[in-house]
Amino acid sequence: MTSESLARAIDTSWVLVAAFLVFFMQAGFAMVEAGFTRAKNAGNIVLKNLMDFSAGSVAYWLVGFALMYGASAAGLLGTSGFASPWSVTGLEWTGLPIEAFWMFQVVFAGTAATIVSGAMAERTRFASYLTFAFVISALIYPILGHWIWGGGWLARLAVPVKDFAGSTVVHSVGGWAALAGVLAVGARMGRFSQQGPRNGIEPAVAGHSLTLAALGVFILWFGWFGFNPGSTLGVTGDRAALAARVAVNTNLAAATGALAGLFLSKLHRGKFAVDAALNGTLAGLVAITAGAPYVSDIGALIIGVLGGATMYGATLLLEAWRVDDAVGAIPVHGVAGAVGTLAVGLFDLETGLLYGAGPAQLVSQLIAVVACFVWTFGVSWLAFAAIKAVMGLRVTPEEEAHGLDVHEHGVVAYPDFTAGHPVEPGAVTAPAMGASGR
Amino acid sequence: MTSESLARAIDTSWVLVAAFLVFFMQAGFAMVEAGFTRAKNAGNIVLKNLMDFSAGSVAYWLVGFALMYGASAAGLLGTSGFASPWSVTGLEWTGLPIEAFWMFQVVFAGTAATIVSGAMAERTRFASYLTFAFVISALIYPILGHWIWGGGWLARLAVPVKDFAGSTVVHSVGGWAALAGVLAVGARMGRFSQQGPRNGIEPAVAGHSLTLAALGVFILWFGWFGFNPGSTLGVTGDRAALAARVAVNTNLAAATGALAGLFLSKLHRGKFAVDAALNGTLAGLVAITAGAPYVSDIGALIIGVLGGATMYGATLLLEAWRVDDAVGAIPVHGVAGAVGTLAVGLFDLETGLLYGAGPAQLVSQLIAVVACFVWTFGVSWLAFAAIKAVMGLRVTPEEEAHGLDVHEHGVVAYPDFTAGHPVEPGAVTAPAMGASGR
Amino acid sequence: MTSESLARAIDTSWVLVAAFLVFFMQAGFAMVEAGFTRAKNAGNIVLKNLMDFSAGSVAYWLVGFALMYGASAAGLLGTSGFASPWSVTGLEWTGLPIEAFWMFQVVFAGTAATIVSGAMAERTRFASYLTFAFVISALIYPILGHWIWGGGWLARLAVPVKDFAGSTVVHSVGGWAALAGVLAVGARMGRFSQQGPRNGIEPAVAGHSLTLAALGVFILWFGWFGFNPGSTLGVTGDRAALAARVAVNTNLAAATGALAGLFLSKLHRGKFAVDAALNGTLAGLVAITAGAPYVSDIGALIIGVLGGATMYGATLLLEAWRVDDAVGAIPVHGVAGAVGTLAVGLFDLETGLLYGAGPAQLVSQLIAVVACFVWTFGVSWLAFAAIKAVMGLRVTPEEEAHGLDVHEHGVVAYPDFTAGHPVEPGAVTAPAMGASGR
Repeated sequence: MTSESLARAIDTSWVLVAAFLVFFMQAGFAMVEAGFTRAKNAGNIVLKNLMDFSAGSVAYWLVGFALMYGASAAGLLGTSGFASPWSVTGLEWTGLPIEAFWMFQVVFAGTAATIVSGAMAERTRFASYLTFAFVISALIYPILGHWIWGGGWLARLAVPVKDFAGSTVVHSVGGWAALAGVLAVGARMGRFSQQGPRNGIEPAVAGHSLTLAALGVFILWFGWFGFNPGSTLGVTGDRAALAARVAVNTNLAAATGALAGLFLSKLHRGKFAVDAALNGTLAGLVAITAGAPYVSDIGALIIGVLGGATMYGATLLLEAWRVDDAVGAIPVHGVAGAVGTLAVGLFDLETGLLYGAGPAQLVSQLIAVVACFVWTFGVSWLAFAAIKAVMGLRVTPEEEAHGLDVHEHGVVAYPDFTAGHPVEPGAVTAPAMGASGR
Repeated sequence: MTSESLARAIDTSWVLVAAFLVFFMQAGFAMVEAGFTRAKNAGNIVLKNLMDFSAGSVAYWLVGFALMYGASAAGLLGTSGFASPWSVTGLEWTGLPIEAFWMFQVVFAGTAATIVSGAMAERTRFASYLTFAFVISALIYPILGHWIWGGGWLARLAVPVKDFAGSTVVHSVGGWAALAGVLAVGARMGRFSQQGPRNGIEPAVAGHSLTLAALGVFILWFGWFGFNPGSTLGVTGDRAALAARVAVNTNLAAATGALAGLFLSKLHRGKFAVDAALNGTLAGLVAITAGAPYVSDIGALIIGVLGGATMYGATLLLEAWRVDDAVGAIPVHGVAGAVGTLAVGLFDLETGLLYGAGPAQLVSQLIAVVACFVWTFGVSWLAFAAIKAVMGLRVTPEEEAHGLDVHEHGVVAYPDFTAGHPVEPGAVTAPAMGASGR
Repeated sequence: MTSESLARAIDTSWVLVAAFLVFFMQAGFAMVEAGFTRAKNAGNIVLKNLMDFSAGSVAYWLVGFALMYGASAAGLLGTSGFASPWSVTGLEWTGLPIEAFWMFQVVFAGTAATIVSGAMAERTRFASYLTFAFVISALIYPILGHWIWGGGWLARLAVPVKDFAGSTVVHSVGGWAALAGVLAVGARMGRFSQQGPRNGIEPAVAGHSLTLAALGVFILWFGWFGFNPGSTLGVTGDRAALAARVAVNTNLAAATGALAGLFLSKLHRGKFAVDAALNGTLAGLVAITAGAPYVSDIGALIIGVLGGATMYGATLLLEAWRVDDAVGAIPVHGVAGAVGTLAVGLFDLETGLLYGAGPAQLVSQLIAVVACFVWTFGVSWLAFAAIKAVMGLRVTPEEEAHGLDVHEHGVVAYPDFTAGHPVEPGAVTAPAMGASGR
């Protein structure tokens, strides 16, 4: 067997295993979002996570991959490979079977899509959300992705944008789409009741399981080891040391992100807040995603702190602005994603401002951050407006009060336990398919 | 180092990592089965999942592997390697250390065994179930496995049966054994009460945690990326592209299986049912398992729909027949497994009927499906009859009413929460070993 | 590409994937410890698990790795590489990028640290625990690790100590530190109330979720396939078969450990105890960790039984001695770790007493077990004494009664469910960052 053939096997194995780990992040998002929301909506949120990835996989096979990696039209979008991703050319540089590259890409598309479900949780109609999940996977994410990863205009700047594994391409896209979504659907009932923001958190909107939320964060950290190190697209040659360095930096930033969130909550709330540590971890991971291979271990430690701290501040800002993000997706993915992307302009060992390379990289990063916000927020807003007009976006107040599970899914997630919320008397309860009498 | 040696390292690494992912499916089954059954039996079901794999591992080391891959006696069963799997010869073709091949095989045996626990949940005696788990891992699964994967008679047909990763060998075996089990043990009390099947689902048999059930499905989907792509037994040479294609087809079928289950439930029940989407996902995965490397991406999309749809229909049929499968294991693993096996005869790019290759492959597939049903259902029925006669199969009505946890395990799974079911006053509650005073 | 370069890629990929699996064990510990303790402390325990790994990662980067693998001072401790792990020399023998080796080492350090949290659960102050987690990751674990893995004095014995993946280095260190911790902090209120140990388990100290505990054990078993097989540090050459054999032995010992715990509980308690099977599984895994590559499959089956059985006996002993280990960490990690380390002296195919090689290896193993206990227990005791004096170690009786979540973290883990324990009226409840109004 030739060494080229062996190298191809090694790199394909690496990318596929990484893709499987990234897929598993779907379970992490589902647990975080379920844990941070109420029991009466638990069935709804896990179903949204399952179905946005399922619909997204089909959408990305049908349209997304073609728009992202197909033959570029003026650096704006791809134009070949619709419903036939294997026909896309020009990816030979990866040295991978195109199916392996597609597999790695589809789980990234699924990540961007699923971020939105958490922010809009507990009041968004299921069918309306699923429609948007299809749109972001088919259009919004792939086109932005084309600009940076598909050889589009942001990759053609004098100093090309550096977004290694997608602080902007994946996470900010998810975060800014979530922002458009929560503004379009509005805050949950009672979320900002008079005394609410002043004295303490209202139980009315408290998450129903800190253990599931924590499990979700551990799963996401685990999956991120596929997300970032896997983005080397191989471990042969110099990429062995590179992939290892990416793994180390990812781990260090997650750790300092958690520490930043934890100690800020101690300073600010007087308690070591679990939710602040959990979202701090995720913010650290999001922030290091853009620069993991470009920065030093010390850079990673600092970027994790920046991610966790800006996440914390942005959370307070959204509170002050009465923007209801049910799980903190906007601060974690939108804000920390932007911060991490800009941080490359500062900490990149070759092109970073702090290493004496001047502001050029930072400027390119800033352009990418702005372009991502304008495109994603703008198109998402239009999409949600259209969905609102055509099929409606929000459930009725009665449905919201009783819980989406009963009304939209005819189920109660935890029938054996006394839930703290009213349940429609006639409500049916969570069956297994095998146990669903009809 | 020679290229042969390097290839061996690459392929061994691939197969071991895949085996680890398949092992993790045990956690997925445990969460799905626990989530879809009641809190009063939660300790029992997770223990069954842990112990069937543990007993099954020993059984497969002692007997199973020898019957499956030992020297074949007339294509009916293997006859060498009892309690000494490393002495089995004739597996050099794998190019793997025999321990790596065994590791990959034992987790498959464990999968077949654990499928049964869910269907028979909430009324089967623990010791009786564990005895059957040993029998299926030691005898039933390995002998059927020998017929198709061990060079047995089904592998010697003019047109050999194609069951890549075990839609029939693993999943149908589990499903048909489960069918024998539920018929032998009978339906749960109140499962088919007069008003039951007519108006809505009785809370009496509702699952206690949709979030755990959903987590289980995500874990299973994740583990399936070891189950199917790992079955290439390597990624060197042409298998790099093959493994990638298998991963893609597995993902697409899971997605369309979920969509099929979801939309069928919307049409049929008027609601987007969570359980239908969850079992639809699993049915899509089961269905693509036989043909993942042989069909196109479009074939995979269709096979996923077929799996999800037949699972849904079979569930209704079992309802009508008053067959009580607590988690839907028979429709998901038995039926979708058979459908997926037959689908190879239709969608195989080389030998499929729809690609103009005639019915020969389809006939072979049909023979395998029938042989699997006759063997598995027949022997399982005899095994359950013997267990029933010797040690009893079902708990007492009182034990069933109070829950198996209290009576069989002396524990309550969730002592801090008000359970919706009567608990024996004197019942002790879930301790950690360290907290168990005696 | 040269074959050396390809081999390096294969081995780096193997070690990194293994490191990711070992990281995931953090989720397993979090779920086991949360499941085996009460709902009122669930937020606290998951936060401890998240933060000890986060603080530990920084501590190991700053100090730990240097003490463990830096230039050895008389075989007692390493002296180079503080805050600059990449500057450590002498690790070329691994054939790995040093970042990959560090990544694999940091997750081991995190494992040793997190073992302590469970034993001391439900009454230890958060800040005090986090301080100790930093100390064990920065000093206690690395120095003991230097003695055996870093070329220290235990590696320089005439017959060097054999502790392949750390039954002593990782697990006994965690277990003996936990013993010092529980003795320093004392038993939980009501844990040994008069009638307690006599008649049955007091609900007062029962774990709140057997399903989460079981999920944790499945995750740990899964992660152990990174812990042990990954410790080959590669799969090229003879290590392909070696890694496979390690995986097989790990799986067999886990299985027989589970069976030993299960049947001992049946004999002793008259019931098939879930907790005994869960901790039996872990004890089997801990016990095989030292000798996985050195013993036969039959040796592994026996070692698993020894691990499970000694865990069970040690649990009873701690009960009799009124030592309150909330999750059984001391019997599982301390005792089974010591047993597994000694077992190498008996079952090692080359140097084991039972294979006619005389007692030399057994003596070396015994020296390591004793040295580990003396060092770890001694220094941990001093550390806890210092923490107690400076910042206090235990929460107030009121805080313990209400739960650590409310007092230390201002949260309730499951606000939607009726908890079996008093909750401070004014207590705020579990928010997502996005849902925390102020």
